[in-house]
Amino acid sequence: MIKSNHIKFKKANNFSDWYVEILIKSEFVDYSPIKGFMVLRPNGYEIWEFLQDIINKKLKKSGHRNAFLPILIPENLLVKEKNHFNGFNPEVFWVSKYGNSNKLALRPTSETLAYFFYSKWIKSWRDLPLKLNFWNTALRAEIKSTKPFLRTSEFLWQEGHTAHATQKEAENEVYDILFMYKNIIENELAIPVIIGKKTNKEKFVGAVYTTALESIMPDGKSLQMGTSHLLGQNFSKPFKIKFLDKSNVENYVWQTSWGVSWRLIGAMIMIHGDDKGIILPPRISPIQVIIIPIYYSLQELEKILAVANKIQNALVNKNVRIEIDKRDNVTPGFKFNYWELRGIPLRIEIGPSDMNKQKFVLVNRYTKEKKCMNINELDEIVNILETIQNAMFNYVKKSINEKIVEVKNYEQFKIHIKNGKSVMAPLCKNELCEMKIKQETNADVRVITFNKTNSSKKCIYCNSRCSEWSLFGHGY
Amino acid sequence: MIKSNHIKFKKANNFSDWYVEILIKSEFVDYSPIKGFMVLRPNGYEIWEFLQDIINKKLKKSGHRNAFLPILIPENLLVKEKNHFNGFNPEVFWVSKYGNSNKLALRPTSETLAYFFYSKWIKSWRDLPLKLNFWNTALRAEIKSTKPFLRTSEFLWQEGHTAHATQKEAENEVYDILFMYKNIIENELAIPVIIGKKTNKEKFVGAVYTTALESIMPDGKSLQMGTSHLLGQNFSKPFKIKFLDKSNVENYVWQTSWGVSWRLIGAMIMIHGDDKGIILPPRISPIQVIIIPIYYSLQELEKILAVANKIQNALVNKNVRIEIDKRDNVTPGFKFNYWELRGIPLRIEIGPSDMNKQKFVLVNRYTKEKKCMNINELDEIVNILETIQNAMFNYVKKSINEKIVEVKNYEQFKIHIKNGKSVMAPLCKNELCEMKIKQETNADVRVITFNKTNSSKKCIYCNSRCSEWSLFGHGY
Repeated sequence: MIKSNHIKFKKANNFSDWYVEILIKSEFVDYSPIKGFMVLRPNGYEIWEFLQDIINKKLKKSGHRNAFLPILIPENLLVKEKNHFNGFNPEVFWVSKYGNSNKLALRPTSETLAYFFYSKWIKSWRDLPLKLNFWNTALRAEIKSTKPFLRTSEFLWQEGHTAHATQKEAENEVYDILFMYKNIIENELAIPVIIGKKTNKEKFVGAVYTTALESIMPDGKSLQMGTSHLLGQNFSKPFKIKFLDKSNVENYVWQTSWGVSWRLIGAMIMIHGDDKGIILPPRISPIQVIIIPIYYSLQELEKILAVANKIQNALVNKNVRIEIDKRDNVTPGFKFNYWELRGIPLRIEIGPSDMNKQKFVLVNRYTKEKKCMNINELDEIVNILETIQNAMFNYVKKSINEKIVEVKNYEQFKIHIKNGKSVMAPLCKNELCEMKIKQETNADVRVITFNKTNSSKKCIYCNSRCSEWSLFGHGY
Repeated sequence: MIKSNHIKFKKANNFSDWYVEILIKSEFVDYSPIKGFMVLRPNGYEIWEFLQDIINKKLKKSGHRNAFLPILIPENLLVKEKNHFNGFNPEVFWVSKYGNSNKLALRPTSETLAYFFYSKWIKSWRDLPLKLNFWNTALRAEIKSTKPFLRTSEFLWQEGHTAHATQKEAENEVYDILFMYKNIIENELAIPVIIGKKTNKEKFVGAVYTTALESIMPDGKSLQMGTSHLLGQNFSKPFKIKFLDKSNVENYVWQTSWGVSWRLIGAMIMIHGDDKGIILPPRISPIQVIIIPIYYSLQELEKILAVANKIQNALVNKNVRIEIDKRDNVTPGFKFNYWELRGIPLRIEIGPSDMNKQKFVLVNRYTKEKKCMNINELDEIVNILETIQNAMFNYVKKSINEKIVEVKNYEQFKIHIKNGKSVMAPLCKNELCEMKIKQETNADVRVITFNKTNSSKKCIYCNSRCSEWSLFGHGY
């Protein structure tokens, strides 16, 4: 139950407190008694289920299948790929007590356990490709302060693990997934992303290379939205995942892994929310239209519900997700705030006078426009939902573009980074330049973008020739 | 990849080995390198997803909502309800290393953590009922030997947790859920169950009472299929879950909790499987009909696929879940075995000569019947699927009834229990009788059935008057 719908903090003035406040007041999340852990309440979990459904449909269509892996991983498996283990070791939770067994880790990610099985399951070229996905949680002890969805010691995610006969096939998978993520994040969550490769310094521990999707939040910080890794044969060799090819020659498989987490929900809320609460893009909103009857007697209510049902049925037939808020223990005013705070795109109010005229009021959560509509104009609502979705994406696209500055010399670079901008600049492949820039400006390379041009450029730091643009900024 | 489809063990002679063999060979499960833990491979996980979907639809219809709780529970919460803690403590996994935090338990069940939140979320009668469900895993260290789905240290399940204003409402919830489970287990999984209450000795630790669904496996052992508990105010008092009622008086809420796990899949496989592998009841089978083209040239294949597509489209329109096995790297014979082992209810074979006559062969996994059908008889397939579902249920119903003997004196009781039967017998409420019977025969009370009659009966052990029939047997 919401006690007060008033949002104390302003997005523009106190972004971080505003974010937490709207998450708590909208009953999306709550804090666990254990620092760093988070509860996802039904309002928030519904979005996660919705996102799962979208991802599942796309993955199944491309021949991936879901499965389940245990949460506990024996230490001797986790250490098998050395870089991988060194990268995760400081964050691992260990189980102390379990008979005489070896040390057991709570899954920080499942590569090592999955590949123990892959080495049993894959014997021949007929077993390839193997394309599995796991919906689970990962546990990584967070030492920094917690931020719901963005930085928690346990998080919900999906992790995909595939094995292929050739490097080319594996690389195609890496990019197919990257573009699937881009499509979902941009088209469903209305969040524009910049895609590219991570530098060697920033890639996934154990990967040959990591591709990633980055976006920029309203406070100017960058947020990694998902990653898709080429693992090559880095894991198949220590885990002995081998197959006999058609000519009966034994080969190591080529692998990929990739994942997105509930962080996507956090990004969506940070980006689209306003001082009244959450704003959900229509395509991801479990409820797109909420009908609120306004009445003074039960007799009136009955008549209003008849109209409401008619509207609901008509829109359900148009595949609109629409509900009637029939609660009789709260006022219409309470309901307006309740659904506003939760970010439902459209509200229909039907009062006694409207009803007689076959009219209703439509309130747009995103634009805040109110308009009076006739019941025979219902078809328009489908268009309005589409218009909102596009307007939300375009607005964010524009504001992210304004946060990115293209620079060609290091003096400009330092000024813009200091001013909280993200910077797009040429960077050579010498790791020293990346490290020096980090030391001197604290800026990270978020991604080496796929935005290559033919014109030869000069590295922002060492002036040597290079061909790639990198996005620099500060991450969460 | 299945190397050999031959099932070595016979269900009738070596039930336990047969069960594990068909699970492994059908690629439903695999063993983890950690004793007691299990992997669910895609063939098995698909069934779990299907079951989730059925349960989710029913729960959402009755006003329940899903949410997510962390896996780690602080020791001080887990101990708050003493009986509950004492019951679970020997099975708890503890996390050793996490900064300076208190001892952390891996969730054996979520009552204590959930109710920590319920005490924050529930303030007024307006917040009730609160009806939440969580799809997660539970971890309980198994000391006995592992059996896939039935006895594992980690298992997939759903746990429901509800809070109500009155005892009556909470009791209604307990029974609504019990009957929802009965409906799903009998109608979807084709497994007849006996419902009733657990004795005080066998009830859930912390509950006022536990209702349960029991079934009897082909080896004569009883298996608990699910439970629905009345928690009363046993948790709301230590956790201080209070609400102001309409007259502004503060009360403790009344609670329930309930769950079913992947054990249901294990039961289904044990009960219906045969010496050729798994047999899935049509309603729970992710694929109900598999089409296998039989061809000698690519030209033939093309023509056969045209017919196959036609059949597929016609049956999809009848809501039949049907796939075509288009793999070109295995033989038709391999495919027959592959889908037989996995338990897909119907197989359609289309060969070159059939195709020209608009005919195909239909093979029934359950009855093993083969028949030649004409393409214009496709409608019949819907009826055949229904017939299989009913025949499977009725057959098991009959064979379970044969395993249960009703007895009225203790001599008979001992003989039948010794012979591996389940026994239905009157039992009084004196806990001593239950304990003595256990000592002398090793038989447990599985449930006190709801099968009451008005006639006064005499307790099988002490001969005192009693009114309840109990089901006795040996459990897994």
